[in-house]
Amino acid sequence: VVVTAVSGAAVGKGNYRHFMEKELHEHPAVIGDTLRQYLDPGTHAVRLPRLPFDPAVVPRLTLSACGSAFLAAHVGRYWIEQLARIPCDADVASELRYRDPPLAPGGGAILVSQSGETADTMAALRLLKEGGQRVLSIVNVPESTMARLSDAALLTVAGPEIGVASTKAFTAQLSVLACLALGFARSRGTIEVAEEERLTQALLSIPGHAAAVLEQDDRIKALAAEIMAARDVLFLGRGSMFPIAMEGALKLKEISYIHAEGYAAGEMKHGPIALIDPAVPVIALCPSGPLFEKTASNLQEAAARGGRIMAFTDATGAPALSRFAEQVITLPGIDPFAAPILHSIPVQLLAYHVAALKGTDVDQPRNLAKSVTVE
Amino acid sequence: VVVTAVSGAAVGKGNYRHFMEKELHEHPAVIGDTLRQYLDPGTHAVRLPRLPFDPAVVPRLTLSACGSAFLAAHVGRYWIEQLARIPCDADVASELRYRDPPLAPGGGAILVSQSGETADTMAALRLLKEGGQRVLSIVNVPESTMARLSDAALLTVAGPEIGVASTKAFTAQLSVLACLALGFARSRGTIEVAEEERLTQALLSIPGHAAAVLEQDDRIKALAAEIMAARDVLFLGRGSMFPIAMEGALKLKEISYIHAEGYAAGEMKHGPIALIDPAVPVIALCPSGPLFEKTASNLQEAAARGGRIMAFTDATGAPALSRFAEQVITLPGIDPFAAPILHSIPVQLLAYHVAALKGTDVDQPRNLAKSVTVE
Repeated sequence: VVVTAVSGAAVGKGNYRHFMEKELHEHPAVIGDTLRQYLDPGTHAVRLPRLPFDPAVVPRLTLSACGSAFLAAHVGRYWIEQLARIPCDADVASELRYRDPPLAPGGGAILVSQSGETADTMAALRLLKEGGQRVLSIVNVPESTMARLSDAALLTVAGPEIGVASTKAFTAQLSVLACLALGFARSRGTIEVAEEERLTQALLSIPGHAAAVLEQDDRIKALAAEIMAARDVLFLGRGSMFPIAMEGALKLKEISYIHAEGYAAGEMKHGPIALIDPAVPVIALCPSGPLFEKTASNLQEAAARGGRIMAFTDATGAPALSRFAEQVITLPGIDPFAAPILHSIPVQLLAYHVAALKGTDVDQPRNLAKSVTVE
Repeated sequence: VVVTAVSGAAVGKGNYRHFMEKELHEHPAVIGDTLRQYLDPGTHAVRLPRLPFDPAVVPRLTLSACGSAFLAAHVGRYWIEQLARIPCDADVASELRYRDPPLAPGGGAILVSQSGETADTMAALRLLKEGGQRVLSIVNVPESTMARLSDAALLTVAGPEIGVASTKAFTAQLSVLACLALGFARSRGTIEVAEEERLTQALLSIPGHAAAVLEQDDRIKALAAEIMAARDVLFLGRGSMFPIAMEGALKLKEISYIHAEGYAAGEMKHGPIALIDPAVPVIALCPSGPLFEKTASNLQEAAARGGRIMAFTDATGAPALSRFAEQVITLPGIDPFAAPILHSIPVQLLAYHVAALKGTDVDQPRNLAKSVTVE
């Protein structure tokens, strides 16, 4: 067990310049190890351990976390609502803990934290337990306080994460949440066997595709050189890519000190589009799929107003975006269900390269602590 | 009836430089007119028209809108959950319409739009009706498509709003939502009579206090001169002041083209605090109340890292904030329930003055339309 838990993550920087760079390159191993933890090795079907609530009947789930872990929870809400049809609330922990939410009798909660010691998330955990909710935590540290206080804990198999800005722990959290969404859907009978198999295969294809994304390192570094002088950057996405747009922005804020903001692409025209000018690059997460056309149309509007569009997409989406985007990075094609996990990697890598080019303290960015144990 | 509907809003700029300035000065009249529409003139208790769902038994409410109207809906979620204990979802319409949310059988929905013609919000309306939800709209135009398509429409009494950036329509939307929260709470028996009376009185005190806020115009203009050169600004708030922080940021984006971002104050330490330096002013919404100490503590952390704090508070909160804030603007003291409505005014006024000082096209900001009838 201990061997598995550190498999993707030998300690030390190895040949990398920063821990963050090393940890970015552990994405394929960590995603693979985490998925294997929750998939049956024979059938490859999701196999969840005993949960503190019965997903077949739980009336509502509250998801809560802080920082990047909250963005993982936010993707989790999209997945669980769409696949398993369980209504979910997602709130940052510092809000949830003080707002006395009306909790459903018999409700469940999913809390996410790399360290398992995040003060606000622990306070939310206590509030939820006192409110009669059955609490499942997703943590990277099995001995953590949150693992101990929860009714059950699911482990991410990310190994030690040294860089303050979370990378591999984030994709590992998404991997667990994706397995939960599939497992809940099966329990509730809201997914066909063939569809479940298709989506599981999509998840299992991520490690290989992630390695291919990492091989585009030079391309992403060149993109970083294009945006490193920007003072402001917008990240756009729709649906489950919206939280990934926010993750890209958060990462860039944290380590490059560029004021990046993530926005739901459809909200642009309701205000933020006024910001668009050539000095504000727009990074778009726009894989092919049902939301592609709408997102592309939002990007075209931004381009028409002088916006410099840098788009992450796949071979299917690239031709349409190339008509107006300044840069198009073609990632491996993948089912939209798994796209948020795969697309996390290039946006984190982009932030890394911008910071490294700017010469900031990548692993210890100013003002930040790895585990926020104060409120 | 027609007389009441335009009472606060004669058309024409009068002695004002811009429609937006004129509309900002209509806040007291518009809030008063809108509240009177939903309060019994004799008892001053909330008196709601017949609603399309019974708040006493409705299992869940979906709130949706775009832009500023969505931020009003977001405050509405805080109020309705806290006072009436009805679980609420709040999603921007461009997300809700494409994500196939699991809707509660017998559920209700509240949609908010000034024009009543916003394309994304109308699409959300149709999705919600098809999903069996009973839809209540809050609109400013009684003849609008949304008013017609909804099961019932509640009117804001804001009069014509000409400035593209919403001001008085926003506080009018909040005024309706506050009355709904109180009315729902009474229907569900989740509020004591004395408490309801106290909160109603707090609402009724807003127009007078709003006039006092507008008298601080010169003070807020001086603050605008302090931040007009900034390229980036953060707005912070907790609880129901968090959406108002986002409203302040959205308004500044829309008309001054400064990249402002609103954040839940408790999330700062999970990333955005890395941005803090003297070039990024922090505007804080920090009225006294149960969340004051925690918010002040977040602000003090930002100040300790070189952040220039500009705080909106009241006489009770001012001494503590003055110890580290560069500027403290003291607004009239008001119950925390009503504070989001009152604090909307100075942040909108601030955005107005920044834009006017910068000489942007305040009433017709670049790239934006008043009523977004495209997707």
